[in-house]
Amino acid sequence: MTTADEVIPADYRDLLERPLYGHLATVRRDGTVQVEPMWFEFDGEFILFTHTSKRQKYRNLMANPAAALSVNDPDAPYRFLEVRGVLDHVDLDPEGAFYRQLARRYGRADQAPPDAADRVILYIRPTATAKQ
Amino acid sequence: MTTADEVIPADYRDLLERPLYGHLATVRRDGTVQVEPMWFEFDGEFILFTHTSKRQKYRNLMANPAAALSVNDPDAPYRFLEVRGVLDHVDLDPEGAFYRQLARRYGRADQAPPDAADRVILYIRPTATAKQ
Repeated sequence: MTTADEVIPADYRDLLERPLYGHLATVRRDGTVQVEPMWFEFDGEFILFTHTSKRQKYRNLMANPAAALSVNDPDAPYRFLEVRGVLDHVDLDPEGAFYRQLARRYGRADQAPPDAADRVILYIRPTATAKQ
Repeated sequence: MTTADEVIPADYRDLLERPLYGHLATVRRDGTVQVEPMWFEFDGEFILFTHTSKRQKYRNLMANPAAALSVNDPDAPYRFLEVRGVLDHVDLDPEGAFYRQLARRYGRADQAPPDAADRVILYIRPTATAKQ
């Protein structure tokens, strides 16, 4: 299996390390598509998202694990990275600890999860990229 | 048929009118998903993109016309609009005139299309939105 280090171009890795918004696309059960801006964190192997088990994206990924993330550089808007991947696994986050960790990363240290009991962590394994 | 005016919330329409990047998601033939930042323009009925007939997104949309666009507000990053829709039709743009129109909109008045002969205009008809 290829590792994330082999998949993510080293000279675009900063777009995953800076606290930028990623636009996460998933496929709905009817075959249409959705995309929204999301907080994320790259741990060197997976791209992690905080989400809940009650929402549309979770249902989408349970039925079709394909995901794609688009991040562009606010300082150079023509520079972007797309990461395609698959949902590898889901961890429960019933205290919202990972939500708080992401909130700190995005400068919202005081923000508590509105729905901690349903919080989960989505682990997306990168499989391919596109860049410009 | 609902009109774009009925679909797009009036208080989020500015996100389609300002020259912001839209992250456009489409479904690939293998059922996975892709998403990239794109220039766009909203004409009040359709969301228009410049593209070429030789590229992946075009092939995706020919096989599955579903598309989704995510735009967030750089001045208030928690404010965003997602527009889901379908490819309604495609116009040829063999002189790259629409490419130049978008380049002007995005402050790149001097930028000529690298591949004018294959340029097309994608017309996405909005069918649903999500916002925050």
